[in-house]
Amino acid sequence: MRPNDRAVDQVRPIKMTRNYTAYAEGSVLVEFGNTKVLCNASVEENVPRWLKGKGKGWVTAEYGMLPRATHTRNRREAASGKQGGRTMEIQRLIARSLRAVVDLEAMGEIMVTVDCDVIQADGGTRTASISGASVAMADAFQKLVAQGKLKANPMKGHVSAVSVGIVNGQGLCDLEYVEDSAADTDMNVVMTEEGKMIEVQGTAEGEPFSHEELMELLALAQKGIADIIEVQKAALAE
Amino acid sequence: MRPNDRAVDQVRPIKMTRNYTAYAEGSVLVEFGNTKVLCNASVEENVPRWLKGKGKGWVTAEYGMLPRATHTRNRREAASGKQGGRTMEIQRLIARSLRAVVDLEAMGEIMVTVDCDVIQADGGTRTASISGASVAMADAFQKLVAQGKLKANPMKGHVSAVSVGIVNGQGLCDLEYVEDSAADTDMNVVMTEEGKMIEVQGTAEGEPFSHEELMELLALAQKGIADIIEVQKAALAE
Amino acid sequence: MRPNDRAVDQVRPIKMTRNYTAYAEGSVLVEFGNTKVLCNASVEENVPRWLKGKGKGWVTAEYGMLPRATHTRNRREAASGKQGGRTMEIQRLIARSLRAVVDLEAMGEIMVTVDCDVIQADGGTRTASISGASVAMADAFQKLVAQGKLKANPMKGHVSAVSVGIVNGQGLCDLEYVEDSAADTDMNVVMTEEGKMIEVQGTAEGEPFSHEELMELLALAQKGIADIIEVQKAALAE
Amino acid sequence: MRPNDRAVDQVRPIKMTRNYTAYAEGSVLVEFGNTKVLCNASVEENVPRWLKGKGKGWVTAEYGMLPRATHTRNRREAASGKQGGRTMEIQRLIARSLRAVVDLEAMGEIMVTVDCDVIQADGGTRTASISGASVAMADAFQKLVAQGKLKANPMKGHVSAVSVGIVNGQGLCDLEYVEDSAADTDMNVVMTEEGKMIEVQGTAEGEPFSHEELMELLALAQKGIADIIEVQKAALAE
Amino acid sequence: MRPNDRAVDQVRPIKMTRNYTAYAEGSVLVEFGNTKVLCNASVEENVPRWLKGKGKGWVTAEYGMLPRATHTRNRREAASGKQGGRTMEIQRLIARSLRAVVDLEAMGEIMVTVDCDVIQADGGTRTASISGASVAMADAFQKLVAQGKLKANPMKGHVSAVSVGIVNGQGLCDLEYVEDSAADTDMNVVMTEEGKMIEVQGTAEGEPFSHEELMELLALAQKGIADIIEVQKAALAE
Amino acid sequence: MRPNDRAVDQVRPIKMTRNYTAYAEGSVLVEFGNTKVLCNASVEENVPRWLKGKGKGWVTAEYGMLPRATHTRNRREAASGKQGGRTMEIQRLIARSLRAVVDLEAMGEIMVTVDCDVIQADGGTRTASISGASVAMADAFQKLVAQGKLKANPMKGHVSAVSVGIVNGQGLCDLEYVEDSAADTDMNVVMTEEGKMIEVQGTAEGEPFSHEELMELLALAQKGIADIIEVQKAALAE
Repeated sequence: MRPNDRAVDQVRPIKMTRNYTAYAEGSVLVEFGNTKVLCNASVEENVPRWLKGKGKGWVTAEYGMLPRATHTRNRREAASGKQGGRTMEIQRLIARSLRAVVDLEAMGEIMVTVDCDVIQADGGTRTASISGASVAMADAFQKLVAQGKLKANPMKGHVSAVSVGIVNGQGLCDLEYVEDSAADTDMNVVMTEEGKMIEVQGTAEGEPFSHEELMELLALAQKGIADIIEVQKAALAE
Repeated sequence: MRPNDRAVDQVRPIKMTRNYTAYAEGSVLVEFGNTKVLCNASVEENVPRWLKGKGKGWVTAEYGMLPRATHTRNRREAASGKQGGRTMEIQRLIARSLRAVVDLEAMGEIMVTVDCDVIQADGGTRTASISGASVAMADAFQKLVAQGKLKANPMKGHVSAVSVGIVNGQGLCDLEYVEDSAADTDMNVVMTEEGKMIEVQGTAEGEPFSHEELMELLALAQKGIADIIEVQKAALAE
Repeated sequence: MRPNDRAVDQVRPIKMTRNYTAYAEGSVLVEFGNTKVLCNASVEENVPRWLKGKGKGWVTAEYGMLPRATHTRNRREAASGKQGGRTMEIQRLIARSLRAVVDLEAMGEIMVTVDCDVIQADGGTRTASISGASVAMADAFQKLVAQGKLKANPMKGHVSAVSVGIVNGQGLCDLEYVEDSAADTDMNVVMTEEGKMIEVQGTAEGEPFSHEELMELLALAQKGIADIIEVQKAALAE
Repeated sequence: MRPNDRAVDQVRPIKMTRNYTAYAEGSVLVEFGNTKVLCNASVEENVPRWLKGKGKGWVTAEYGMLPRATHTRNRREAASGKQGGRTMEIQRLIARSLRAVVDLEAMGEIMVTVDCDVIQADGGTRTASISGASVAMADAFQKLVAQGKLKANPMKGHVSAVSVGIVNGQGLCDLEYVEDSAADTDMNVVMTEEGKMIEVQGTAEGEPFSHEELMELLALAQKGIADIIEVQKAALAE
Repeated sequence: MRPNDRAVDQVRPIKMTRNYTAYAEGSVLVEFGNTKVLCNASVEENVPRWLKGKGKGWVTAEYGMLPRATHTRNRREAASGKQGGRTMEIQRLIARSLRAVVDLEAMGEIMVTVDCDVIQADGGTRTASISGASVAMADAFQKLVAQGKLKANPMKGHVSAVSVGIVNGQGLCDLEYVEDSAADTDMNVVMTEEGKMIEVQGTAEGEPFSHEELMELLALAQKGIADIIEVQKAALAE
Repeated sequence: MRPNDRAVDQVRPIKMTRNYTAYAEGSVLVEFGNTKVLCNASVEENVPRWLKGKGKGWVTAEYGMLPRATHTRNRREAASGKQGGRTMEIQRLIARSLRAVVDLEAMGEIMVTVDCDVIQADGGTRTASISGASVAMADAFQKLVAQGKLKANPMKGHVSAVSVGIVNGQGLCDLEYVEDSAADTDMNVVMTEEGKMIEVQGTAEGEPFSHEELMELLALAQKGIADIIEVQKAALAE
């Protein structure tokens, strides 16, 4: 039995609070059960040096975890003087996922940076980050349209992500921490709202996984992402 | 006239939400108007190397600001590879202030680290951090007492802090950002609940200040701190 | 047509030269066409601090690229003072892949570090690294068995990896650099010799990919990995 | 009794040697008893990037301590790869203090950097640094006036600083190391020659301090600073 | 007796393989016995900022050692976040040696960077690097001449280097690792093909050395360098 | 003509002031004309980890330059976050030179660190550092003997160093900055008081140098070092 009687293909209760902070062009607190991530999208009318003069925009992301987002305190990355490998891996994934749904040419020479800071971590922080960042980014673009700085929102659709995994031989959707720790296989899937894939990252933590298991996990992800997209749409409709 | 018709000696609406996150031994979201800081106190049954075997505890603090806590985005310190001078100065101040109200001998070889992370910054983040951290630390100690790991709470009382300043010749209590930017003199005062001083840091940003102005600022601070202590007590009484 | 008339499901000519350097416990120069990676496995009779006293071993990996392994010179990471995000991501992947085929309990308190240094880069350096590192690690374990330090080789089998991708709508196995740059989707697959999956990492560089495309890529990967395993076995049989 | 029969309100013998080194535009060795700090002011006809084109100058400061300025050797900050929190705090204080007595607009786009390097430390290094840096900066500006690069010296007056404290219930002026270590309260006061305050930083190291004690410390500081200003004026008159 | 019956004034078998990698403008694998260094020369049509607009070129070098080039594994410098003192010393020596044989004015505003990466280390890696880098640089310049970017090769001749030392009272040419470890005096000599000296660096590891010993070492170096220059010329003649 | 009518083989006026600072076990301000270096020797009853338990001592050195020791200000190494290549090269040279005259076995498990900090730089800072550090180290050892911690001073004699060079075809001893900048060849020689060599580092800055020129430089160095040793002995005799 999963915690809180969740079904194997059921995502945790998801909540997206827009305008969570006052200054960012897009600000969303995303909650997947006890996992809480603040996603702030910042607009800069400027692009990285290597893009200057090409008439294209850029979308990037940074990820961080408050030292006590977790059960025991982690060392603050600013204090240790560098971002760890896990942090870098995650923020590169978030940024790629966001860029996959944006028409960079249509942005003009503007840069959007989405900061995903984990307030509380109970599994699935990277996929929650992507799902929330998509909404924060949409808000930021909407603001640019409202200000007349963009003619239309350059997003081609929403991007959502979910983690799925195999625990004791059973495929599960949207793992929480206790499940994640026990998983043999852990997979993060990032999809567009049309159900096409942007990223698929499956890792055998224990036993290698078979083709059949991969198929089961993909099906669970597809179901979960459909539910997340509903929440994203509802949040933006408010 | 101050924003929101505040009186010159009036602090902003203050709110302290205990148990804001689930895992920290003490977790307080402190709000001074639009300034919001998450203070998480973590307990470790261990002390820094230079204290080992002395039968004493230690209290320390770290401070950070989310990149988009402010009107425009600041570079993430973890990404730039070091904490800036302002950050270091603030976290040293918070830590000294907290230690001033704790009987370190009575703690035994335990360390409390309070992380103060600014979610939204509208002036006075360091004084809000101290005021909130005191409550988070109290909760953490209370938990150790409840677990039988400490016989009594080693805090000698609360510590509170407020910023005061002179704007256009007028002394003001609890500056918000627009006031702070315009201040000629800016002073942070840290006090015990008995009204004794732990830290006084006054800085002439523009014109140097006179002895009389210093007296006016101290009086404003005393009044503000009395109000903050009420909120601290109320929060802990809940 | 692919360069050198390669078939879409055909890997490049692969060569694994054992004992390439003289001092490492395992040393393999792996070549996938023009991609050349030196994989040196080092044995240390010691484990990381967090593992001490648990009777278990550890396998880790580091990855680097010589500054002029590529068409234009890249800045030396030692000179810039940190490893980039890509490097960290890759070395974490190599290490996880290697650990997946080793019985860490059976190793005892020994650590194997495999350094994968890219001498020449023409696409697929991370998958070539994994494929070569598996052989270097096998040699290192064999040496420990020969010295009587281990009773048996703790590897459960070989691990191989290949990159596959979609270029102009066509699935291709073992992308070289010109193909990789043009790919819409790029996927790295790591498998055991039994054909079970250890890692699957697919990324849409351009258009998102469909379930059918994912299936096609997995089939190509399976075919390629079977060929690579032949080369691994042949190398170890010499 | 204080060491060397000093009165409670008496500063140590102070010496300011101008032109201590040959190349700096202003170079002062300041001695407060056994505390010796070399203050070198350097002029650059250039300003930091964020000030360019604004027609304003800038004054900044850096602080360092030779590894064996103290009773036992401290690690060299250049070797440990970063400046500690204490160093940053001090150099920010010195810089703010110096800027408070300079008309930055009148400087034009020129930058003055004052390096304060502690040769020997016996308490009060930050206040000695400020007091000596003021003279070194005056020399540097005088040189610019003599060269016709500035019409007049943009300094509005001297800045001086002294540390005061409470030791065993007794207020003392200009603490030396043995007194500083025993102090319950330690306060640094920075003043203009007109007796106005630029910075007041009081810290309870042991017991919190009362309003009356603060008043006593301020009076001691005022007396000490008057004496230091005499020495500054005498030095510049030579 | 020396290993492999070498005569005291005999260099190890030397091999220089040109075009060892495919992309660098000059690429030489240099082998002195078991010491193997890959020297890649990269051309950039650009100079460091401090040289811009002066119509001159620049030659620089970087040095690195693969972690397992040696008998036991050394920590990767990119992972430890900085280049060690030995690395910096060596790469500065290589760069000075190369510049000594190049007419920088004749280069125009072009920069050549030679990366010397040690694949296997058995003593004399810095002198092998210089000897190999000279050939790699010659190839890079030749390419620029062939492309019409330079009228003539700006090298004034070859530069070669060898290490000599005193082991058990006996002067030896081209020390290998076991000899180097036992040497009382170790000297690196860098010469032009005309036999003039560019660098002489002699160090007493054990006993200080006399004038006579220095003379003996210089004679051995001269003989060794003559042999190395033969190999350089032969390699370029191929 | 040399500045101040110096003869070609004449060293600058040299002064060694012992006990320059109060706390170091040995403290010497060494002046070679306008070059001034403070050499502080610190004793620690402890050795680096890799030496523990071997019954041997260690001698090391660190070198730094105050930012405004030179004609124009250099960036502070502590602020830039690392020691430059030149600094590392120099401090390694100083340390090796000092160790060459100490019987490390006779020291017992004690470490001496000599900090050489350049107050003013007018050429020859590294050789002045070595010459002054030798005296500072002698004082430190003498103190250990006086305290009964060592039976006898473990120094085998003094170590001295001088820079020599060829300027406009003329060999010169003890170059000052204007000479050094114009030198074709620059050589640092470190010798024992018996005239044996510890280090010889000659570099052709412009034209390569001949064997005859090397001989001329060595003779000049021998003469200069004899004069420096006189000053060292006189200083220690006071």
